[in-house]
Order: sequence, then structure tokens, then C-alpha cells
Amino acid sequence: MPYVNIRITREGATKEQKQELISGVTMLLRDILGKNPATTFVIIDELDTDNWGIGGETVTELRKRKD
Amino acid sequence: MPYVNIRITREGATKEQKQELISGVTMLLRDILGKNPATTFVIIDELDTDNWGIGGETVTELRKRKD
Amino acid sequence: MPYVNIRITREGATKEQKQELISGVTMLLRDILGKNPATTFVIIDELDTDNWGIGGETVTELRKRKD
Amino acid sequence: MPYVNIRITREGATKEQKQELISGVTMLLRDILGKNPATTFVIIDELDTDNWGIGGETVTELRKRKD
Amino acid sequence: MPYVNIRITREGATKEQKQELISGVTMLLRDILGKNPATTFVIIDELDTDNWGIGGETVTELRKRKD
Amino acid sequence: MPYVNIRITREGATKEQKQELISGVTMLLRDILGKNPATTFVIIDELDTDNWGIGGETVTELRKRKD
Repeated sequence: MPYVNIRITREGATKEQKQELISGVTMLLRDILGKNPATTFVIIDELDTDNWGIGGETVTELRKRKD
Repeated sequence: MPYVNIRITREGATKEQKQELISGVTMLLRDILGKNPATTFVIIDELDTDNWGIGGETVTELRKRKD
Repeated sequence: MPYVNIRITREGATKEQKQELISGVTMLLRDILGKNPATTFVIIDELDTDNWGIGGETVTELRKRKD
Repeated sequence: MPYVNIRITREGATKEQKQELISGVTMLLRDILGKNPATTFVIIDELDTDNWGIGGETVTELRKRKD
Repeated sequence: MPYVNIRITREGATKEQKQELISGVTMLLRDILGKNPATTFVIIDELDTDNWGIGGETVTELRKRKD
Repeated sequence: MPYVNIRITREGATKEQKQELISGVTMLLRDILGKNPATTFVIIDELDTDNWGIGGETVTELRKRKD
């Protein structure tokens, strides 16, 4: 009965991509650890780029500099 | 000083229900473990059904099939 | 299918108290929000008092001062 | 490679304040534990005052009573 | 720069299985969402079966009944 | 009433360093956002290097290669 929490920046992940991610992670847990998919939770949090920092700055700033 | 995080799908929990949940959990921690309500945090995350997976599929898909 | 994470300091909660907490929270979610107990997860993290801070100091220090 | 999650109520923190928080926490981890800023994540969750409880009641109620 | 937290009961997952899980999830995020593995964190929490509840009871009890 | 969760690998952080981190983060939240230290929680999780992955491999492997 694993619980998986995936946290990413909100930058356009589609419904289909999220579905793929959920099913992919669920299968990994079944294949590697024998976990039952019926009680495997996969929860995706999408966060604003203003609220995600790496290297001491927000992803918003990071993306700007890269453009 | 417990911290409790309740994660549910966003499917219409009302302000009153959330208040009830917060006070109920706080009382449980006081009654069972003697924890001080003044420093008990209860935080509710409501997640989109597209972002919650169980059994390898999203709750969005699950709800559709049940209708 | 709620996920509940209860975080407390490791200060002697017994197996029985943890069982009571798990069943109490599960019942609250069923009674207030109609959530199915079969897919309700309640996970308890017990943390060292050195690793828990409130008011800018560790619970270890707080406990000492209270003695 | 630390991961830091800051959870606050959504009550008007600005972009600049969030940036300050991210850089401040990243520097603390570098100065105190020698952690590399390049792989330090700081993620801020802002929650509705209806979804945050302390002392058994929501912050929404708490704020009302204080006015 | 995703952050993934996998929470499972502590029931003997090996070093190798954990390594496989970490690399599998990292590859999924690269393949599905184009996320850079260099800044993908995967963190595994292993919890005591006394501290994990499902269906209102601990996994410890659940395992006993199944034997 | 912020909640801060700092997750690091278990590689020898001392009691004093953890105390410094807790007080530093609490002060940042007071100075930048005006948050009351009395209801600021800072919780540190220390994880085994086998349970922390970055770039698709565990920190255990990463450390070995660096030696």
C-alpha cells in the first residue's frame, strides 16, 4: 500500500501525461516490490514557479534568464 | 505539538465539514495522546481528481466509469 | 481515498494508542466526508525531539526547561 | 541536496518575499551544514485559511475573532 | 526539478530494489515530462507497520490476520 | 503559524547544527513574513543515503564514486 507524492512545477503537464505518470509509477512498485496496485496512491502536486526555489532562486527567475 | 496533514480529492468538502474535521482530529490527539490543542496543526490539501491516482488510474477516470 | 499523515515527537506513544488514532481518524473521515475506510491511509511519523522545533528551539530544550 | 517545504497560509506573501525566503533558507543550509545551493530545493505551499487549523479551529475563524 | 517521495512499509526492501525504484521513477519523469534527471530527487520513507493504517487498522494487525 | 519540513541525508548533523537551523529558519519567517515564532514548527527529517536518490542513483553510490 505505497503512497507516492510527485511534486513538479506547474508548466503545462497534460491530463494524459499525468495519467501516464500515475500508471508508470504504480507498475514500477508492483514490478520491483510486489506492491498491490489496488492500494497504491500516486498524488501529483503542481506548484507555481514563484513557489519553487533551486540554487537560491525561484524557477520563475531561472526560466527568464534562460530565454 | 502534532502536525496533521489530510489530503483529499477536491470534490466539494464544505467549510463546515473542514472545520469539523479539524476540530475532530485535534480532539482525538488530545484524548488519546494528551496533546495540547493550542499547538496542534491540522492542514487540509484538496487535490484535483486528475492529480490523484489509485490502482494505476486517475480518480477522474474512476468516477467516470462509476457513472 | 484520503491520505492522512500525523507527525508527532517520539515520546512513548504505544502500539495501542497508535491503533486508536488510526481508527479514530478513519472514522472521522467516514462520518464527516463519507470517505471509504478501505482506501483511507493514516500514517504516523514519530520524530526525535532534537529534530522538532517550535518557537525557534528544539523540543529537547523545551522539555529540559520544564523539568 | 536538501529538500525544504515551507507551508504557510495564503495571506498575501509577495513574489519578492517568497524569493527572499528561498534564498535565505538556501544560505542557512549552506552556512550551517555545508549543503550545496545548486541542489537545494525550497518549495512553498500557500494554503487557504479554511484549510488550516490550529487549536481546533480554522485560521479563517481565528482571523475573524481578532478583528 | 521534480521531487518524488515514496512511502512504503518497512518490510525488507533491499538496497538494490531501492536503487531500481529511484532510477525507474527518474526515467519515467524524463520520458514523460522531459524532466532533467540531474535535478530529480526521489526519496524513500520506510515506515514501521505499527505506524501505517489502512481500513482503520495497522498493517501489523492486517499481516497477523493474513497468516 | 508556518510549518517547515527540512529533509536532509543522515550524514552527521549535530544537535547544535539542528538547533541553529531551527532557530535560523524561524527568524527568517518572522523577519520576512512577520510570522509568530511561538507557532512556527520546523521539523527535520534525516534520511539514510540508500533512501535518497538524485540523478537516478542513490546518494550512497554518489558518495562512493567521489571517494
